[in-house]
Amino acid sequence: MSGPLIHSTQQTDDAGAPAGLAGRHLLSAGDLSRADAVLILDTAEELARLADQPIKKLPTLRGRVVVNLFYEDSTRTRASFEIAAKKLSADVINVTAKSSSVSKGESLKDTALTLEAMGTDAVVVRHPASGAAHRLAHAGWISSSVINAGDRAHEHPTQALLDAFTMRRRLGNLDGRRVTIVGDILHSRVARSNILLLHTLGAEVTVVAPPTLLPAGISSWSCAVSYDLDAVLPKSDVIYTTRPKQEWQAAAYFPTLREYSRYYCLDIRRAELLPPHAIVMDCGPMNRGVQIAAEVADGPRSVIVAQVSNGVSIRMAVLYLLLGGSQPAFSATEEAAR
Amino acid sequence: MSGPLIHSTQQTDDAGAPAGLAGRHLLSAGDLSRADAVLILDTAEELARLADQPIKKLPTLRGRVVVNLFYEDSTRTRASFEIAAKKLSADVINVTAKSSSVSKGESLKDTALTLEAMGTDAVVVRHPASGAAHRLAHAGWISSSVINAGDRAHEHPTQALLDAFTMRRRLGNLDGRRVTIVGDILHSRVARSNILLLHTLGAEVTVVAPPTLLPAGISSWSCAVSYDLDAVLPKSDVIYTTRPKQEWQAAAYFPTLREYSRYYCLDIRRAELLPPHAIVMDCGPMNRGVQIAAEVADGPRSVIVAQVSNGVSIRMAVLYLLLGGSQPAFSATEEAAR
Amino acid sequence: MSGPLIHSTQQTDDAGAPAGLAGRHLLSAGDLSRADAVLILDTAEELARLADQPIKKLPTLRGRVVVNLFYEDSTRTRASFEIAAKKLSADVINVTAKSSSVSKGESLKDTALTLEAMGTDAVVVRHPASGAAHRLAHAGWISSSVINAGDRAHEHPTQALLDAFTMRRRLGNLDGRRVTIVGDILHSRVARSNILLLHTLGAEVTVVAPPTLLPAGISSWSCAVSYDLDAVLPKSDVIYTTRPKQEWQAAAYFPTLREYSRYYCLDIRRAELLPPHAIVMDCGPMNRGVQIAAEVADGPRSVIVAQVSNGVSIRMAVLYLLLGGSQPAFSATEEAAR
Repeated sequence: MSGPLIHSTQQTDDAGAPAGLAGRHLLSAGDLSRADAVLILDTAEELARLADQPIKKLPTLRGRVVVNLFYEDSTRTRASFEIAAKKLSADVINVTAKSSSVSKGESLKDTALTLEAMGTDAVVVRHPASGAAHRLAHAGWISSSVINAGDRAHEHPTQALLDAFTMRRRLGNLDGRRVTIVGDILHSRVARSNILLLHTLGAEVTVVAPPTLLPAGISSWSCAVSYDLDAVLPKSDVIYTTRPKQEWQAAAYFPTLREYSRYYCLDIRRAELLPPHAIVMDCGPMNRGVQIAAEVADGPRSVIVAQVSNGVSIRMAVLYLLLGGSQPAFSATEEAAR
Repeated sequence: MSGPLIHSTQQTDDAGAPAGLAGRHLLSAGDLSRADAVLILDTAEELARLADQPIKKLPTLRGRVVVNLFYEDSTRTRASFEIAAKKLSADVINVTAKSSSVSKGESLKDTALTLEAMGTDAVVVRHPASGAAHRLAHAGWISSSVINAGDRAHEHPTQALLDAFTMRRRLGNLDGRRVTIVGDILHSRVARSNILLLHTLGAEVTVVAPPTLLPAGISSWSCAVSYDLDAVLPKSDVIYTTRPKQEWQAAAYFPTLREYSRYYCLDIRRAELLPPHAIVMDCGPMNRGVQIAAEVADGPRSVIVAQVSNGVSIRMAVLYLLLGGSQPAFSATEEAAR
Repeated sequence: MSGPLIHSTQQTDDAGAPAGLAGRHLLSAGDLSRADAVLILDTAEELARLADQPIKKLPTLRGRVVVNLFYEDSTRTRASFEIAAKKLSADVINVTAKSSSVSKGESLKDTALTLEAMGTDAVVVRHPASGAAHRLAHAGWISSSVINAGDRAHEHPTQALLDAFTMRRRLGNLDGRRVTIVGDILHSRVARSNILLLHTLGAEVTVVAPPTLLPAGISSWSCAVSYDLDAVLPKSDVIYTTRPKQEWQAAAYFPTLREYSRYYCLDIRRAELLPPHAIVMDCGPMNRGVQIAAEVADGPRSVIVAQVSNGVSIRMAVLYLLLGGSQPAFSATEEAAR
């Protein structure tokens, strides 16, 4: 790891955290300016090179405390943040909170005050209520950094960042790239965060979904809408599938999973409509055969496994930029290379 | 971190662990002599200065294993011990044990033998049975240090230590200081441990509670008893509220929470009866509006958040003194300051 | 820690992992050649000496990620692996997975791909399905090392290794040693793994059990069978008791625990039939009074606690040999001795 990381670090040291990580939080993909997002992606690119080092760990955040505060189970996201924090030598405390029976706000407030008082530097929060991360960050309860790891159907900004990172690694600059997101847009924080970030990065997003799974105000979002997957596939650089939750079937958002599948599953026939360079993405967990055929998910166009890998690099970059590090990257690199 | 820590460390190295941490355990606030308690508070004071260091971590307990053995959920206490141990570079293993259906003693014994055999240096135990920590320490099963992190209504000594630490930081020497504890004294390990430790440190404790929430032998405890909160408040340097558990209402310990509140809640009117220098404490989790008004809990007299902070320093001090450290504090400080 | 460890490390560096850890996995005790097994035991012997060092931790696996993937609760095994990995400075991620409602294979595959993509170096897996670890290792999903920490009634190879290590420490070379395993052979992965490994190491195994608790093909296993515990005890160097699960009573494998106990419990009278040098083992958790009398379990012949201790050394050795370490043991030793 050479010049570039030192360079970006010095930028950060001079200028403080990127403006879009205002107050040193990451709450919404929509808060990030293009410069912010590019800085995160560039930092992740450099940190990804750690995988080639003999010791795959940096001492940058030694003595810092990162709390994973999960009000919902998510092994995958929790483990990704935990690995990212530990690769930067932070201490990680896992807290699995059950939403208590008392008013949620109170409970979240006391938990926040408690974690803050214990010397927490960053709180990674997954919460079943939209806006919980924002409230945690801005209610005046705490001064540590808050990272939104998913708040219901609202946002999941590190997912959008790792997706953009994955696209950029495969396709280069995202300006003018056409990204199609298919599936449950209404309930998907991933779709929402992706639409916001991809727009900032200059990509053109089209969403494809049954009308019942589109949010009411979709016409004001920075994306096009289509109901015809076959028509948009030939013009897509990226096709991004999302999982229709079985519970929405009961709620009459669509008749049956089979019916959903007929119109929106990325099966082999549909995948062949894509241009040769196009890539296939999914945020997992995958319901093979419903939103995507197993052969496509596991096929050569799929970058689904790379998304997971890139998640660790992105989360390292976010923690690194938010917490600033306790050492210049230079000595960090030296120690890692010892 | 300079002279003082080295000094106290050398005392410890010369003299072994404080006598009251007999057998290198911390089971009851009542086991601590005044000298023991003062040594722990002084050590915590020095370790608290770690917060001002660039790297907020000491290598003192590197290679030591601390097990958090929790037979009851307590995110707050578990996280506090975990952070404290990690700030001293110990490895922490979290074990959430369900009280098994077999005889509790047997189960605790086998768990103890197993943890001991794995090379555990300290076991932090929270258990729903009074005396469990004592049994763990003294049944001859293990030689590692045992720290009582709460055994039903019996004791919670690190809570009492962090409370005394918080009082001393705000009020200075505790000799002759008047501390009023209000609420459920009968079921509160916090009240019990506080009464024992505060007496040792020279403070005068008054408990205020409905007669049904006072233990039968209260007259033999080292504290005064009152049923009139308004009368004792003007003479209190510290008012310490505790939570009446809703389940006691069903058990007829008091008619309703509202009724309890009328007589024992520290509301704004009552808080104004306190002398100007008096501080407000609560061990959390708080039931705002029942034992304490939100405005008082979050007001300028409240040191409730400081209590949580101080908890980490106290637990670091206890682990440091019990486990002795593997390095003199001097080199530890040097490494941390690198 | 001197010559020997450096020596065995250089062997490993030259020759790669032992052949029986083929593909750098440890799935079955039956995969290990005698040379493999001896290398693991010898490495564990050297790593056990770490307990005498001032800092009981080696930097060997710094930056490596070990995931404990437990589909079943097992505090004891999980904690043992976690301590072993941390003593080698690996980062440990605990994942408690519930077998999902979808086809188990799919779920395991996606979990495997996810963990692999996050940069996991080793997956320690406990799973309720026989063969799960093998599938995880050989389905082509992942390249990280897989360690079988118990797959139903199939295998538990690190348990067999720690048992052999314990026997060798007490009795010396195992060639010709007579080991009697009593209890539920049918459902016991521990019995199965022990029989395989002990045969490889030259010991002669006899199993004693009610016919209903013997597997159908037992005659083809490398062990003798007896139904008369009293008859084999005088000829045993090791007596190894296993727990009859209460649920098998309901399933009519034996009439009652009391009845089982009458014929198969290692009580004081039976223990006195053993030759003077014989040792008593059990893999825990123990049901005192059912498969073994408390006085025998806690008596002078018992090495049950040593088995647990040795478990940490064996798991360190397995992780060390599978992951190869990131540094020569020499510098590791120097740093530990600083």
